[in-house]
Amino acid sequence: MDGLEWDKIIIGVDPGTNVMGYGILGVKQKKPHAIAMGVILLNKFEDHYLRLRRISERMTGIIEQYLPDEMALEAPFYGKNVQSMLKLGRAQGVAMATALVHDIPIAEYAPLKVKQTITGNGAASKEQVAEMLRRILNIPKENMDKHLDATDALGVALCHFYESQRPVVGKTYKSWKDFVAKNPEKVK
Amino acid sequence: MDGLEWDKIIIGVDPGTNVMGYGILGVKQKKPHAIAMGVILLNKFEDHYLRLRRISERMTGIIEQYLPDEMALEAPFYGKNVQSMLKLGRAQGVAMATALVHDIPIAEYAPLKVKQTITGNGAASKEQVAEMLRRILNIPKENMDKHLDATDALGVALCHFYESQRPVVGKTYKSWKDFVAKNPEKVK
Repeated sequence: MDGLEWDKIIIGVDPGTNVMGYGILGVKQKKPHAIAMGVILLNKFEDHYLRLRRISERMTGIIEQYLPDEMALEAPFYGKNVQSMLKLGRAQGVAMATALVHDIPIAEYAPLKVKQTITGNGAASKEQVAEMLRRILNIPKENMDKHLDATDALGVALCHFYESQRPVVGKTYKSWKDFVAKNPEKVK
Repeated sequence: MDGLEWDKIIIGVDPGTNVMGYGILGVKQKKPHAIAMGVILLNKFEDHYLRLRRISERMTGIIEQYLPDEMALEAPFYGKNVQSMLKLGRAQGVAMATALVHDIPIAEYAPLKVKQTITGNGAASKEQVAEMLRRILNIPKENMDKHLDATDALGVALCHFYESQRPVVGKTYKSWKDFVAKNPEKVK
């Protein structure tokens, strides 16, 4: 299935200064499907500019490959210190710029909101988010990216999908237990 | 004089989330000349994304118009709070991305360093920096941009020029008085 067959493509981004995750979600007949996920490894570069440049190059390549219609960004609003927030802001800014130049609208979600939406629990672990994603999207275990930044990115894309569908779907889960109870066919 | 006649073109950027200043410096036979300066006004946009988008569009236009060889960024390393630093980082990141995609190397200078280099006084006011720039670059008073973010941006470009020339030139001034004493012909 190539990009032209989807009703909408959402790119989810989990931006960090060491690893940047991305996940591509395709929507067809109001149903989400995982298209791709992966990470941009930045920690091999000592230099801050080389990291930003890497983000710029790889994100541009990913956007030109998958031609997403929307970008969803997982964005913490508070950090340890101003210095690390400036660096994170720059990494986010460079990633966002690749969407801005392609006229792709950007939505932002706090990590808690993503966890809450995917698992029903704002305090869920990254592993729980990954496992829930795998079940919701029916991703074979061997196709799951081992990097939790990649699954987190796919998670924010799925969170955005749910949010944009909300007035239509209105289906939420209070907890993993609740989800399993309501979707026995998705839990294998 | 068009861009092709310059030995090197430096773009200076004073990135902020309300106003972003830029200054274009041309270097010919190791002498700096002011080519242009201006501001990108962002405070008319309430929305953070519209601001980032404006930065992306305008900076891309400016870079494609003047084709700079190097970018010099005035960058404070400490801010009031993590929230404002994240926003500033994003604005910087978007501006830096326009250089990164054009393979333009980026150098950064703290505000104190720029003031020190231009006026000899790290505690100089923006007005003093602007007046010193006007004298060093022989800019007619009527051609000076009234926005101090624009002159600040030209200042960081000039600071970068001095820094990159340093091993060759090695001429520094301890203070404005010192500069005036050594360059009577530049003070009119």
